[in-house]
Amino acid sequence: MLRMIQESPLYKISNPDSIAFFGASNNFDSMGSHLMASPLALGFKGPIYPIHPKEERIMNLKAYRSILDLPETPDLAVIVLPAGIVCRTLEECGQKGIRHAIVISGGFKEVGGSGTELEKKLLEVADKYGIRFIGPNCIGVSNQRHRINTTPLPYQNVPGFIGMASQSGSFITQIYNHLHNLNLGFSTAFSVGNEANIDIVDCMEYFKACPHTKVIALYIESIRRGREFLKVARKIVPHKPIVALYPGGTEEGRKAGLSHTGAMAGPDPLYNGIFQQGGVIRAKSVTELFDFCLVLGNALRPAGNRVVIQTGAGGPGATAADACGRAGLKLPNLSPETIEKLAPLTPDTASINNPVDFTFHRGHMDFYRIVPRILLEDENTDVLLIYFLLPLEMVERLIGNSGVLGEHIHEEAIKFIEGQCREVGDMVEESGKPVVGYTFLDPNELFVRRLLELGVPVLPGSERAARALGAMVRYTELRKKILSDQ
Amino acid sequence: MLRMIQESPLYKISNPDSIAFFGASNNFDSMGSHLMASPLALGFKGPIYPIHPKEERIMNLKAYRSILDLPETPDLAVIVLPAGIVCRTLEECGQKGIRHAIVISGGFKEVGGSGTELEKKLLEVADKYGIRFIGPNCIGVSNQRHRINTTPLPYQNVPGFIGMASQSGSFITQIYNHLHNLNLGFSTAFSVGNEANIDIVDCMEYFKACPHTKVIALYIESIRRGREFLKVARKIVPHKPIVALYPGGTEEGRKAGLSHTGAMAGPDPLYNGIFQQGGVIRAKSVTELFDFCLVLGNALRPAGNRVVIQTGAGGPGATAADACGRAGLKLPNLSPETIEKLAPLTPDTASINNPVDFTFHRGHMDFYRIVPRILLEDENTDVLLIYFLLPLEMVERLIGNSGVLGEHIHEEAIKFIEGQCREVGDMVEESGKPVVGYTFLDPNELFVRRLLELGVPVLPGSERAARALGAMVRYTELRKKILSDQ
Repeated sequence: MLRMIQESPLYKISNPDSIAFFGASNNFDSMGSHLMASPLALGFKGPIYPIHPKEERIMNLKAYRSILDLPETPDLAVIVLPAGIVCRTLEECGQKGIRHAIVISGGFKEVGGSGTELEKKLLEVADKYGIRFIGPNCIGVSNQRHRINTTPLPYQNVPGFIGMASQSGSFITQIYNHLHNLNLGFSTAFSVGNEANIDIVDCMEYFKACPHTKVIALYIESIRRGREFLKVARKIVPHKPIVALYPGGTEEGRKAGLSHTGAMAGPDPLYNGIFQQGGVIRAKSVTELFDFCLVLGNALRPAGNRVVIQTGAGGPGATAADACGRAGLKLPNLSPETIEKLAPLTPDTASINNPVDFTFHRGHMDFYRIVPRILLEDENTDVLLIYFLLPLEMVERLIGNSGVLGEHIHEEAIKFIEGQCREVGDMVEESGKPVVGYTFLDPNELFVRRLLELGVPVLPGSERAARALGAMVRYTELRKKILSDQ
Repeated sequence: MLRMIQESPLYKISNPDSIAFFGASNNFDSMGSHLMASPLALGFKGPIYPIHPKEERIMNLKAYRSILDLPETPDLAVIVLPAGIVCRTLEECGQKGIRHAIVISGGFKEVGGSGTELEKKLLEVADKYGIRFIGPNCIGVSNQRHRINTTPLPYQNVPGFIGMASQSGSFITQIYNHLHNLNLGFSTAFSVGNEANIDIVDCMEYFKACPHTKVIALYIESIRRGREFLKVARKIVPHKPIVALYPGGTEEGRKAGLSHTGAMAGPDPLYNGIFQQGGVIRAKSVTELFDFCLVLGNALRPAGNRVVIQTGAGGPGATAADACGRAGLKLPNLSPETIEKLAPLTPDTASINNPVDFTFHRGHMDFYRIVPRILLEDENTDVLLIYFLLPLEMVERLIGNSGVLGEHIHEEAIKFIEGQCREVGDMVEESGKPVVGYTFLDPNELFVRRLLELGVPVLPGSERAARALGAMVRYTELRKKILSDQ
């Protein structure tokens, strides 16, 4: 394992001070141009040197005929050229003294035949000069804190706590919207492509050492170094959770993975075994992968699998209870003390069972501050799951009807909702036990948005919330197991 | 079955010309006030008569001391009063000649004991005057086309094609955001509460006759008239799909349902049997319920379960293939003719298997017009599943970099995306086979929004899309089975 993050070959790849860029041009719809536009759009702070045989300037930057002409040796080379000239280019990078590269180009091992030969040659060149590179057949790296993004899509998120290593570039670049809606972002994300020189295990070691990474997310079509994967995972899991999406669980997924990365996927039970032994939580979909990260990165570890559900409506309570049941969670009875404490706060029509259903509640303060604290004090509660509902439009209508004048309605409504969010945020912070929310509101509804910004994990729908709770419980169990083996 | 929709007791309940409203006041945060604010906000066209013992005016409307004072007999009474005075109120409504009511008030059978007695008495009053009512313990109705909404939340959606009957009010009123994000709306939605006088089966008959309803959605904690449910479902399913969410599949869900509506839920296999025999598609979550409605309401019926996946990226292809596998779908090989037709359009790095992966595609026209048409012509294709990705911000950056001036960039980007949407829309319309999309973009991204508005079902993530395809295939099979029995 690394003693310092700077020892990782991935450090300079994701935190370079300067970049040489091969393949951008004044054809703005070429892959290379798309990619170089991304760090420029983010405001990358160091120099970017486009290398091009003919152009004088590209995207307002001075272009160079050859890497050998540069005024300095850049930390990183990004190569987006046809496969046939990649080896020669890397050779010149080596001559210039460059020791880190991202090889975006496809046409190597994943196409078989001469592509496999080409990849072997690429490795030889890298070894000759001591160059470490990710790829080929990848889309590189995204590290918002360092304002670097070599992927074709504009990066739209806050810097976050997910360290992602992916055998599909799509899942570090085509899911920005999806992450935004959960207020998630990457600490750093790597698209590892064919993993010729640097693989997923290297990324995991990097994230173990990365101070911004709280959870590690993996998209895996095939594990190439099984033994090392296991060893490294078991070292990481006591400190940080690892969630992995492996789509080879069905014949259909396995065949698709084979044609994508050219790697042989193993049978499902084999991968399940590796994940289980390594303490890795398995996700079954992209949605689960990031839902699990949201909850594992934000909430405390539960002591057990007993969930108390607090709701203001029967249907959402019943579906959450059902989803919890399917996720292997238990709904304990409330203790007599809890029922006694709740009684004076409870409307006639409300139910003091679990789910605790306050029906169409009136006292918001009770609902978001007092009641959850009582439920969290119950010794039978390992996790509190709360249904959230407070749409801006309803609050505005209410405030408008109460006589507040037109121009102030919106302002007052926002103030009210932000107050409620602070109540919830304080309650969660002081809870000592994990609290997770669910809602059917839009993730961009003020109430939901603010809660997410305050670090309260709120998921869309009871099923997603229950499955994420299941992942939390599973992580706690796997972690305990690994710790007890040591 | 009804010969005309006007014969249904639910017709005047959801299409009244005038309403008497009990329980609204100048306390704007009372349940009754919340509810009366809703039809007012929607611009309900007929008169609304608030009845109140003391107030002169409520929300700018003249208030009446008694229903007997009204200048006319309203079509509908909405009652949001304490349980103890509901019977007396309904009696007066009967005297006034009112024949339809919504009883929102809780405190009846669902609380047991004297509540059960009270509900019996309520029924007797109704029978005495020939009054048909929904509730008690419900939140009424939502019918955007008639500008009526008696639920506490503002209705925010377009009028849609889902006929919803729900044993939880939440699922007709707290999911407007969720529906909006799928561009869905209700034809009409009923919260049926305790079903004392009108039940879910009555709603199903209504929706069978309703010309705006293309799909029927049910939230069921308990079926009270099993035999009639089955009979009516089997009459409907050849014409319209029915999707039902039943949360009693686990011990946890069953217990929660019991405390919510006070009805005994049956064991899971019993309900599965009823749904299967009735041709009803079972959803396992609120998300599935409406995803299935989106696809069943928009797409054609598939001839079988063979799915061809078209993608521009390997990872989304592999996860979709895996999700299809788990949903019981098959990924056929493409025919040699199809492969021959695609060859000239295919980039070097692309794969002509299934999923058909065009990698980071350049020719958008090919991708959205020519390629899908070729795939749909393949006799092995029953359903086409397409991965959609075209974020506005990326298109703007591209257009900006190509030299278009600042002020025109946004406009040109929108024009471009709308052009692409029309291509897709035309392709889907001419397809003759079902086409479903998936994406990780936000549902409010222009590209996704417009596709949904054009009636192209696009779901967030491959797993949700695959499960909805599974529901389509299942509906086709169940429908065939019922037709062959007749």
